[in-house]
Amino acid sequence: MASDQIPGYTYGTDDIPDAPISMDEFDRLKQTVLFDEEDEEALRRAGDVLEEQIDDVLELWYGFVGDHDFLLYYFTDGEGNPDEEYLERVRERFGQWILDTCDAPYDEEWLNYQFEIGRRHTREKKNQVDDADAVDHIDMRYLVAFIYPITATIRDFLTAGDHTDEEVDEMYHAWFKSIVLQVTLWSYPYVPEENW
Amino acid sequence: MASDQIPGYTYGTDDIPDAPISMDEFDRLKQTVLFDEEDEEALRRAGDVLEEQIDDVLELWYGFVGDHDFLLYYFTDGEGNPDEEYLERVRERFGQWILDTCDAPYDEEWLNYQFEIGRRHTREKKNQVDDADAVDHIDMRYLVAFIYPITATIRDFLTAGDHTDEEVDEMYHAWFKSIVLQVTLWSYPYVPEENW
Repeated sequence: MASDQIPGYTYGTDDIPDAPISMDEFDRLKQTVLFDEEDEEALRRAGDVLEEQIDDVLELWYGFVGDHDFLLYYFTDGEGNPDEEYLERVRERFGQWILDTCDAPYDEEWLNYQFEIGRRHTREKKNQVDDADAVDHIDMRYLVAFIYPITATIRDFLTAGDHTDEEVDEMYHAWFKSIVLQVTLWSYPYVPEENW
Repeated sequence: MASDQIPGYTYGTDDIPDAPISMDEFDRLKQTVLFDEEDEEALRRAGDVLEEQIDDVLELWYGFVGDHDFLLYYFTDGEGNPDEEYLERVRERFGQWILDTCDAPYDEEWLNYQFEIGRRHTREKKNQVDDADAVDHIDMRYLVAFIYPITATIRDFLTAGDHTDEEVDEMYHAWFKSIVLQVTLWSYPYVPEENW
């Protein structure tokens, strides 16, 4: 699906407010996770490998969520009923997010959209673009904890291309850095500004 | 140094309040990072490998912090003057923390101490056990971002033992899971309870 056809996907549009941090502050976070130009290049190569496997990656991740009631909870009405339409709409954006993680330049537009993704996990904006009636907030502890499964599971998919172990490692580490960087940014709306 | 000689190290003592989450909630977080008994065993093996290298690991990590003013900042008075005594006292506990990450059972006592470590990063308790005059709060974004360097840099040290690549990978993944789990718990005091 062309990305501008994905429901609720608004990366790069005028709907997205400016990030609450400067590009200098963003750069300090990049330095903390050792993220540089070479990682952006490695991620572009990762995108070529993952592009054909998006559905398989999502099946694995959705399977993991579906196997744990306390995770699936965030896609339910809070009384055990999953919202299938919401799950599907999020899935489309989740696939596009994999591609964006790999292909997008890590510039101001990318930064702005990370804060939007953060808000969409919280009471501020969860459910809104999907007009869903699911519980209205994803607890921050699961957002942070998800760094592990979302990172560790990607490595097998990265081996599917025609790359050496060393190149797979470069792609894997670039992905790992990016996930930590993104979750760091997504945590912003959870926290009083002076604590973040 | 025997751990009960380390200034400010109070793991397992009566000074540590009970964790604000139940063991069931703790178990859900473990499940989210796929942490189980095998990881505890792999970490014990990792402890045997790392034990002799604690100073080298700390030198690398302190070097990384020292190379970035915006990270060293949290050990300064906020006006560019690092507090050397504070740096040294934290260093002792940091070394013990590596050993605890590897050797301690991930039980209620361990859980309780994670919340204490969290508080000691924030206005609630930073500087207190060291009677230090450094800035009074570590911004949460750096706590989360540190998951990457603290995880990625450990792998080389794990290869120093007499283990196969597969065993090193098991130790590395157990470490990675534990770091994500710990940072998740440490984030608690930063966030309004209903958001965490």
